[in-house]
Amino acid sequence: MSFVVKPSLWISSSSSSLLGEDSGFTSRTSKVTFNSRTSGVLKCMGVANPAAEITAYTTRVSRNANMAKLQAGYLFPEIARRRTAHISKHPDAQVISLGIGDTTEPIPEVITSAMALRAKALSTIEGYSGYGAEQGDKKLRTAIASTYYGNLGIEENDIFVSDGAKCDISRLQLLFGSNVKVAVQDPSYPAYVDSSVIMGQTGLFEKDNEKYGNIEYMRCTQENDFFPDLSTVSRADVIFFCSPNNPTGSAASREQLTKLVQFAKENGSIIVYDSAYAMYISDDSPRTIFEIPGAKEVALEISSFSKYAGFTGVRLGWTVVPKELLFSDGSRVAKDFNRIVCTSFNGASNVVQAGGLACLSSVGLKAMEDVVSFYQENTKILVHTFSSLGFNVYGGRNAPYVWVHFPGRSSWDVFAEILEKAHLVTTPGSGFGPGGEGFIRVSAFGHRENVLEASRRLKTLFK
Amino acid sequence: MSFVVKPSLWISSSSSSLLGEDSGFTSRTSKVTFNSRTSGVLKCMGVANPAAEITAYTTRVSRNANMAKLQAGYLFPEIARRRTAHISKHPDAQVISLGIGDTTEPIPEVITSAMALRAKALSTIEGYSGYGAEQGDKKLRTAIASTYYGNLGIEENDIFVSDGAKCDISRLQLLFGSNVKVAVQDPSYPAYVDSSVIMGQTGLFEKDNEKYGNIEYMRCTQENDFFPDLSTVSRADVIFFCSPNNPTGSAASREQLTKLVQFAKENGSIIVYDSAYAMYISDDSPRTIFEIPGAKEVALEISSFSKYAGFTGVRLGWTVVPKELLFSDGSRVAKDFNRIVCTSFNGASNVVQAGGLACLSSVGLKAMEDVVSFYQENTKILVHTFSSLGFNVYGGRNAPYVWVHFPGRSSWDVFAEILEKAHLVTTPGSGFGPGGEGFIRVSAFGHRENVLEASRRLKTLFK
Repeated sequence: MSFVVKPSLWISSSSSSLLGEDSGFTSRTSKVTFNSRTSGVLKCMGVANPAAEITAYTTRVSRNANMAKLQAGYLFPEIARRRTAHISKHPDAQVISLGIGDTTEPIPEVITSAMALRAKALSTIEGYSGYGAEQGDKKLRTAIASTYYGNLGIEENDIFVSDGAKCDISRLQLLFGSNVKVAVQDPSYPAYVDSSVIMGQTGLFEKDNEKYGNIEYMRCTQENDFFPDLSTVSRADVIFFCSPNNPTGSAASREQLTKLVQFAKENGSIIVYDSAYAMYISDDSPRTIFEIPGAKEVALEISSFSKYAGFTGVRLGWTVVPKELLFSDGSRVAKDFNRIVCTSFNGASNVVQAGGLACLSSVGLKAMEDVVSFYQENTKILVHTFSSLGFNVYGGRNAPYVWVHFPGRSSWDVFAEILEKAHLVTTPGSGFGPGGEGFIRVSAFGHRENVLEASRRLKTLFK
Repeated sequence: MSFVVKPSLWISSSSSSLLGEDSGFTSRTSKVTFNSRTSGVLKCMGVANPAAEITAYTTRVSRNANMAKLQAGYLFPEIARRRTAHISKHPDAQVISLGIGDTTEPIPEVITSAMALRAKALSTIEGYSGYGAEQGDKKLRTAIASTYYGNLGIEENDIFVSDGAKCDISRLQLLFGSNVKVAVQDPSYPAYVDSSVIMGQTGLFEKDNEKYGNIEYMRCTQENDFFPDLSTVSRADVIFFCSPNNPTGSAASREQLTKLVQFAKENGSIIVYDSAYAMYISDDSPRTIFEIPGAKEVALEISSFSKYAGFTGVRLGWTVVPKELLFSDGSRVAKDFNRIVCTSFNGASNVVQAGGLACLSSVGLKAMEDVVSFYQENTKILVHTFSSLGFNVYGGRNAPYVWVHFPGRSSWDVFAEILEKAHLVTTPGSGFGPGGEGFIRVSAFGHRENVLEASRRLKTLFK
């Protein structure tokens, strides 16, 4: 098959020759094949004979139609792109990022020392180890089970150690396959929807309502205390539910989660509960869905060390799949997830898992708490800043995210204004779903002096 | 929906109460719900009233039909299971594993020191970093491009750093979607076929020929020099091709790979070339598919540090997706793969990537070569052992795998005999596809004394 490049000749800016090393090949399926795309930068050039029709070779493999459904880029790389463009335009600006929820504070030494020790040990006969269990080191699985699910009937073999919650979201989608319908909070972390689209669970994106077909968007707004009105929610097979929520920062109460579990049970749905921010809860909201009676029969839970220990770049998380959770034919969800993990994953890094184990020592737990407390203090500063400027501010109490309302304005416009005038990167609420329109998410991950400086700039901008 | 457990009551061996914490829930969809599966060990117990019908709650979510197609467990966990069972039966036996291709020798210190240093630096303000680029650190991408693809027109932004080749195989399947047909060498590394089944690309497993429907199995035997007769191969969208091959140990020659590229071009197919063992090549076979002119338009390549640097447990690999590789609509495969990587992955661990960069320093490269040479020496010992016993032995010259023929015998029988009588774990050839029947794969990863001891035991067993 040939892909005709018209009307003129496209040539790589770094190509030294029209007929590169590949030019020897002709095939039944392309007219002229040449090495035209070496640099990734295509420039349009005039040619001696403009009538010449030059074709670039294309395979006959169709692009996955689900990939074509995806709108724009994944949210956070898009924000990074805009940040980079802003810096190019304002090379002297001191840009502060309160955008992507990226940890900034050093990892407690007790944790990094454990990783360093494990790394060094790999150079010794006694300390070397090759492939670990795909499900994670037994010690770490046991420590996660006892630390976070001590009295809840979750055991070591219910825990699957991962390289992060985002990665396991896609592995869970592989597990569920393309014939399920999912529900998501609106707004919510975009990986749920995007992975659903990629798996072919959805219809096309509908421009008029900014939603994909065949996804149930559960509206979470200030009017309903950021908890969906379940009486209006249609049945879905899989309900992604993040609490404390990213981006609204709202944690569901025990009463609300009890309703959610009951709703799932009545509908025979599976809840994928994302508790990646549970350590930020400061009131008595449940830290895990398994605090709710009956949850083990309708829920699995994904979580992560990223926001607890500053492991965003180190990569470690876990998923709990209770043995009580069954598909409609009575087979165990955990059994199939185990097969996915064994086929599509090879376990988290042994060096990193040693760090995870150190996180769960008594010293490590205290150290993680200190890091979390630091970010919680940042959160208070940001909440106070926006409140004092008269904005309606949500979240913050149980999460490192502050959710600020700009009624009647477009999130991307507010994002652009704050970036342009205050050199601050935030995240437009609409990037998390149509329910986020009119909001921006402000992340409390940052050095203290940056958060204070951001606060000053915001006060100048919006005074 | 309810799943009726008959004829008697199943109760968890560790359950302290018939009516556990979950018993408060009744729902429209199950008759009686109780916390019956806490321990994962189900025991059948007599009950006072045997007529009582106790049901366990099941969700209404259908099991993914593709998961149900999968045969048995993933190969290597199954071997580990049999190994464990053997050890239980023979607690005093000194079992030596030449089964799963798991590295055993310490990682050179220059590499582990770099990881330890990076880990420790994460405890400092200056050295801390959060989320890295999903595609990998720019320095590492650049080093991979220049080290392995120096003069081949592959650039830094064609490289996607991963947590291992197996993980990227599944991400590639997500990229391709369920509507492609794949071809695999028969025998081949089982992750290609299993991930294809999971993605829904295949039909059911056909017991009569031990193949899944809608997969093209390209037979590779001693008769065809372990290179498929392409004149008999039907068109596939995606051709998985591993060279040096796991399990046969055979590396395709330049002439063979030129034929493969031409075949792909004529058919408009995409080759997924797995070069995870390329560093073991000792003759002039190509180390990468991109040595073949025209390959960039029809191939992408997956590779790994696992077998080069002993990173099986550390987890680091990469995938090359040339910008010249296009779908039939002219869109770039790399663009969609980038979207998959950004949505389903968060980059390899920063600590581990520092190790990868050290691997590619001049000292690191030399150190990796030494490790590879050590395993190559093991390979020679194993080849000599089987040859001297009169077996037809293949592979070994360009790969750490020795492929031994036991004409007329079942691979699993040979596996069981060698395990039972010599306490040696090998891998049954049929685990890699029907074309592997009658063979066993012997891995050369092992301490020298173990390989020598294995050699002695084999000579005793088969003398």
